[in-house]
Amino acid sequence: MDADITYNLLIAGNDRCFTCKKDKTILQALVDCGVFIEANCGGRGTCGRCKIQVLSGQVTTQTGQPVQPGPDKTYLACQVYPRGDITILLNKAAVSSKGQNIEIGIAEETPLVKKVVLTPVYPTVDNHYSLQDMLQQALASQTSDPRLGASLRFFDQAAILRRLAAVVETQPERITLTLLDSQLIAVETGDTSGRLYGVAFDVGTTTVVGMLADIKAGKVIAVCSKNNPQASMGADVISRIQATHELEGGLERLSQLIRICLNQIIAELCGMANIALHDIYTVTVAGNATMSHLALEISPSTLVRKPYAALFKYIAPLDPTELELSINKQGKVIILPNIASFVGSDTTAAILAIEQDIADKPLLLVDLGTNGEMVIGDGKRLYACSTAAGPAFEGAYIRDGMRAAEGAITDVVITGEDVLIQVIGNVKPVGICGSGIVKAVAELVKTGVLAANGRFNTAAGGLPLSIRERLKKRDGQWEFVLVAAKDSAGGADISITQADVRQIQLVKSSICTGIEFLQERLSARHELKVCLAGAFGNYIDIESAVIIGMLPGVRPECIYSVGNAAGTGAVQTLLSAERMQRCIAIAAKVNYVELAAQPGFQNGFLKNLSFPRYCPQ
Amino acid sequence: MDADITYNLLIAGNDRCFTCKKDKTILQALVDCGVFIEANCGGRGTCGRCKIQVLSGQVTTQTGQPVQPGPDKTYLACQVYPRGDITILLNKAAVSSKGQNIEIGIAEETPLVKKVVLTPVYPTVDNHYSLQDMLQQALASQTSDPRLGASLRFFDQAAILRRLAAVVETQPERITLTLLDSQLIAVETGDTSGRLYGVAFDVGTTTVVGMLADIKAGKVIAVCSKNNPQASMGADVISRIQATHELEGGLERLSQLIRICLNQIIAELCGMANIALHDIYTVTVAGNATMSHLALEISPSTLVRKPYAALFKYIAPLDPTELELSINKQGKVIILPNIASFVGSDTTAAILAIEQDIADKPLLLVDLGTNGEMVIGDGKRLYACSTAAGPAFEGAYIRDGMRAAEGAITDVVITGEDVLIQVIGNVKPVGICGSGIVKAVAELVKTGVLAANGRFNTAAGGLPLSIRERLKKRDGQWEFVLVAAKDSAGGADISITQADVRQIQLVKSSICTGIEFLQERLSARHELKVCLAGAFGNYIDIESAVIIGMLPGVRPECIYSVGNAAGTGAVQTLLSAERMQRCIAIAAKVNYVELAAQPGFQNGFLKNLSFPRYCPQ
Repeated sequence: MDADITYNLLIAGNDRCFTCKKDKTILQALVDCGVFIEANCGGRGTCGRCKIQVLSGQVTTQTGQPVQPGPDKTYLACQVYPRGDITILLNKAAVSSKGQNIEIGIAEETPLVKKVVLTPVYPTVDNHYSLQDMLQQALASQTSDPRLGASLRFFDQAAILRRLAAVVETQPERITLTLLDSQLIAVETGDTSGRLYGVAFDVGTTTVVGMLADIKAGKVIAVCSKNNPQASMGADVISRIQATHELEGGLERLSQLIRICLNQIIAELCGMANIALHDIYTVTVAGNATMSHLALEISPSTLVRKPYAALFKYIAPLDPTELELSINKQGKVIILPNIASFVGSDTTAAILAIEQDIADKPLLLVDLGTNGEMVIGDGKRLYACSTAAGPAFEGAYIRDGMRAAEGAITDVVITGEDVLIQVIGNVKPVGICGSGIVKAVAELVKTGVLAANGRFNTAAGGLPLSIRERLKKRDGQWEFVLVAAKDSAGGADISITQADVRQIQLVKSSICTGIEFLQERLSARHELKVCLAGAFGNYIDIESAVIIGMLPGVRPECIYSVGNAAGTGAVQTLLSAERMQRCIAIAAKVNYVELAAQPGFQNGFLKNLSFPRYCPQ
Repeated sequence: MDADITYNLLIAGNDRCFTCKKDKTILQALVDCGVFIEANCGGRGTCGRCKIQVLSGQVTTQTGQPVQPGPDKTYLACQVYPRGDITILLNKAAVSSKGQNIEIGIAEETPLVKKVVLTPVYPTVDNHYSLQDMLQQALASQTSDPRLGASLRFFDQAAILRRLAAVVETQPERITLTLLDSQLIAVETGDTSGRLYGVAFDVGTTTVVGMLADIKAGKVIAVCSKNNPQASMGADVISRIQATHELEGGLERLSQLIRICLNQIIAELCGMANIALHDIYTVTVAGNATMSHLALEISPSTLVRKPYAALFKYIAPLDPTELELSINKQGKVIILPNIASFVGSDTTAAILAIEQDIADKPLLLVDLGTNGEMVIGDGKRLYACSTAAGPAFEGAYIRDGMRAAEGAITDVVITGEDVLIQVIGNVKPVGICGSGIVKAVAELVKTGVLAANGRFNTAAGGLPLSIRERLKKRDGQWEFVLVAAKDSAGGADISITQADVRQIQLVKSSICTGIEFLQERLSARHELKVCLAGAFGNYIDIESAVIIGMLPGVRPECIYSVGNAAGTGAVQTLLSAERMQRCIAIAAKVNYVELAAQPGFQNGFLKNLSFPRYCPQ
């Protein structure tokens, strides 16, 4: 079959020779080969992160049409197919966020999970020590890991002993132990050391991402993301929490939805990497506190009602049955620790990923997903706060808003007389997604269509007629038409309304005010470096964020997009015992700042609703 | 009703005023009042251990007949009923084995289980720390126990967090935590500190004893024993182990039988003490390795087949569901640690009870139940060995043998011309129990009816005719008739046969040889003190044991019966964290001596088959 045609794929700087199939994109081929490169849009061709440089060989569209390369013969790996053996150069920034390679050198660090193969010396009729003793002795004499100690307590768990009973029945020559940090979690017949995988999850309110890691190799070999099916019961955490106490069986349904989703992702990852479910021994989960409560089927309703609290910050490794996850039955699931009720383990993991806990200079993390969390730190102190930033960014509460899917306007540029837009896919525009809204509002501020107070300058004389004509009044409120009805997929204008602008003002003001309060804590304003992370933080146009005043007193050149930092952190904890310890230490160390309880917060929030006066640089 | 008539019961030296009912024995009244006194025969009036001195007031039989007191107005508490207010003096030796009071002073020692009542400060909308944090803070500020630490890890178990979620729903003013050593095991609404009970089990092959302890008071308040129902599948451990691999579902059935028995005892104890099943938070279990494997439904067949080993020595505290025990769901079950395949946790507990681990002089423990275990130690070193001593002592393998029940001959005295016997209950004799057999054999040795080599002296001229006439030949072997057919319940002679004598020789020789090998290890022969323990060790006539040569080179005045030492030890671990730690240390410290593997064992065993020449003192 034509689809089975396979070519050689060489990566400059990498000794191995990979292969790629004719009907798969280069991105898919790279993922299949275990080369993890960022593709935040999931291969839709919109994020531009999977750029590769083709050094030799030819690539085309799926149907064989030529593709126009960028400078230096760069292509988006998700959009091109091989047409022969090719050699490529990876964009270093795509492989790792800001040079932070996701391939953690586990040779240097102590792995979180490892396997030890023992050759047990069985007791005899004249010397019948216990089988527990036998393994303890084998462990002491055949390994040099001091963590394993010499204590019989290492083998004292009933589940392990029952498992050992089954294993020794056939008296195998080799027995493989799997260790999670210094805890024995699995006992297996024979040498199974070749199979050791884990999955790191970033469970977002909107999107769930799973990353399959080959733990021995210390790298991610497959990535899969799905919409969080809980969205059918509410777009944001607050509405889902309400569902748990308003709907009969709401908690159970929400819990089941996310568990099914996690299992689907695990199954797909196993299919992609051609491994078995029982080859997965460890799962780490980063997510906000609501997500971790729901995954555990523990009511999160106390988060929003008396006593206004999360049940837990830290929870010990769980048996897979606790979350009904289909992985190795002897495996463990680790819900990473939360920081506070509304600053979850996704933030903990993100702090770890950008190494804010050991930073030598003040660093600000702005993680914008369905919620917004901000953390400031200088390596010694860490302060965090949260805002319910998100839904506006995800298109909710915006009249013509939509998620970043086909037909979504992702970019808006207002030239002298015209409005240029960029749309996902080769289709008529359907609506506008979060990054498009922010960009549009920034453009409207820049061009003076929006006044500093957020009102449309309907009387502004300085605007070209073609721009001024786009301001219309509909249903009693002003709106700025981006796409006229005749050009839109739905046959209606796609606009930014006065209410939409208000939503963006509310969101950006709460983020801006939160950052100001954090900056006060650290007395660090000017030399601040900013890392933008999260599903939205990653796509936002940095200049636009500065223009609308979301990031106060920060120079654009000090702002970096760091991708899915939470996901990166979750992978790191999966691969490194030291990172896992740091992750737990971070959750204990971060000081939570409850913005609503801060004197002056309301005043600051009202002040920051305004857009800053735009001064072209 | 007449039966409801209640009298005051005063115990000299005890400030409390107890009550006793007219239709209950003084023994029952004492047990009901929480005063634990030894009554090894279970109140049958045969062991003589429950002696009390009546200082004032009157006691009778149940029907009001006068009872002849012993010296100093002593009576057996199990045989007399009050007929007015009475004041008694307890026999110190009966209350405690060798002055070792079972009421462990928990005021002085750290309890194994304790409850802490906290007054939590709930979070507010402005300060929503997690409920886990809340409890941690309450614990840190409201207690002074350094073991509780300040670590969040204290509350990190999923089961505890789920329980906490249920408890905080009603926001109770008080929350009670139950701690097992330094582990949090239960979270409850309100102040439940008044209810804290535990059960210590001694699971013997033949008899299962449960002791209910009021943990706060630090004392046993009820005792209940039952036959081990596994006996229906074999009298000894070997035949039960065979059943696990020969019978379809044999392991499951044996496991169910013991679990049901444990639950029955727990239920009866709760009824006796008028407490609820969920008031029991901890269960400790002493028993041989086969019993603990079976209770856990782990196959013990590897004990007797390749690889000739127990699965485990030490197992961490278990959830009650692991053994299907009906106690508080948040409680824990602790299987005490084994020493070796055939030296179980009953021996570990017995060593603890007689404090052999900290003895300042050489001490020999001989624990005779269905199996025999011997331990020698001087506080520094401990050596143990085992023999399959038991079944003969329990009447199995003895033609007219039976258990110590109604109709059993318990004592035999050969006077000049007659044979006097003592029988349990006021009935015709049915058979002979273990203590009766040993006594009978000793009497036969003493009187010269048995020669040193164990053969009946059928030609001996020195015997009175009335004794000589009791020697008969039946089915080709000699036997000595204790009870003629006309006087027995079954209408047949009750005799000691040549084969029975052989059984006793085999048993006593293996015990004797084992002790000799242990003595060699410690080079301690003469100054040795001996503690006889166990269901059989407790009843055996000490002089007889010396006469038949079971206890080599030991003077009778250095031998003490210490009762159910295993049960006492199991209670101690239930009440004291320090004792529990010592118990675990003991299992790790004892050196096991495999007799069969010792050079010279066979020769020693053959030599010791003979009875020592009897020299009247």
